[in-house]
Amino acid sequence: MDGVIDTGLAQVTRVGEHVYLSGQLALDPDGRIDAPGDCGRQATRCFRNIEGILAAVGGRMSDVVKVVCYLTDAADLAAYAEARRRFLPTVPASTAVVVKALLHEDALLEVDVTAVLPPLPTRIG
Amino acid sequence: MDGVIDTGLAQVTRVGEHVYLSGQLALDPDGRIDAPGDCGRQATRCFRNIEGILAAVGGRMSDVVKVVCYLTDAADLAAYAEARRRFLPTVPASTAVVVKALLHEDALLEVDVTAVLPPLPTRIG
Amino acid sequence: MDGVIDTGLAQVTRVGEHVYLSGQLALDPDGRIDAPGDCGRQATRCFRNIEGILAAVGGRMSDVVKVVCYLTDAADLAAYAEARRRFLPTVPASTAVVVKALLHEDALLEVDVTAVLPPLPTRIG
Repeated sequence: MDGVIDTGLAQVTRVGEHVYLSGQLALDPDGRIDAPGDCGRQATRCFRNIEGILAAVGGRMSDVVKVVCYLTDAADLAAYAEARRRFLPTVPASTAVVVKALLHEDALLEVDVTAVLPPLPTRIG
Repeated sequence: MDGVIDTGLAQVTRVGEHVYLSGQLALDPDGRIDAPGDCGRQATRCFRNIEGILAAVGGRMSDVVKVVCYLTDAADLAAYAEARRRFLPTVPASTAVVVKALLHEDALLEVDVTAVLPPLPTRIG
Repeated sequence: MDGVIDTGLAQVTRVGEHVYLSGQLALDPDGRIDAPGDCGRQATRCFRNIEGILAAVGGRMSDVVKVVCYLTDAADLAAYAEARRRFLPTVPASTAVVVKALLHEDALLEVDVTAVLPPLPTRIG
């Protein structure tokens, strides 16, 4: 998938119209966390990665139906929320909690989305 | 949506029969956390909010297929479980974990549900 | 459901092809956490439990579309990932975070999966 970071894990499962993404850290194309210490820039990177993964399976940000954010610091909520509004203006259902840690030491957030693509037209006759 | 707390976020996304809710804190109609320090009353408020949101999209508590609870204190499990049994007697698939913090300082739990509504009847002819 | 641990909770909700499981701890048939202190063996037990629950509703591990893992210690990631590769070679979308605690004191991880079963053949005529 072009423009999608290779972490050795599948980034997405698509079954019919339902699309499940792996939780996204702010990884750059070299597999390093973008902007250590800056949650706003990390959130932007997470959503760009999500956009690329969705595009690879034929989807768009407006197909996102649910976004769960795992933050490491409650003080980063505003920076995350600002990026979410920018990338998801139609505002899907949303959950955010503060976890003890993420699985990359420089990661400040992990963003986990689910999408439902528009149904393919049914051909009759 | 009548009776639904306005937090500035969408509370729900519905696509076909699939309904995704935002994680619910125990917010009262004034946007304040109900019953600080009392997880049982907060859980009741969370489930009432969920009931209201589901009703607004034509759903019922019996349509809930999955409930994830983020607690801030493991000692609150029993109080949450009691409210869950009361509101979800048919017992959907359930997950509960203890997080470092929630994004409102008085919140003791966040309840995140997914629902699948009964299919609309298909009209043929 | 044969071979499925009874925790007093539903372990699974199936609606059509969509299957939602309860988060699985490494519980043995006596309701005790298997292998306290050993995340690799606990992960194996979690995935065996998931396999049993899926089988009970007509599913298989290859039907899993999303796996979320809640760890209590980031150092356990490798042991979990090894078990995940063994049980889920087709690699569904995956998320893992470190939480403050789980709701059984000996549990090192909770594994939460979603599956979509192949559609039943439609009979026409």
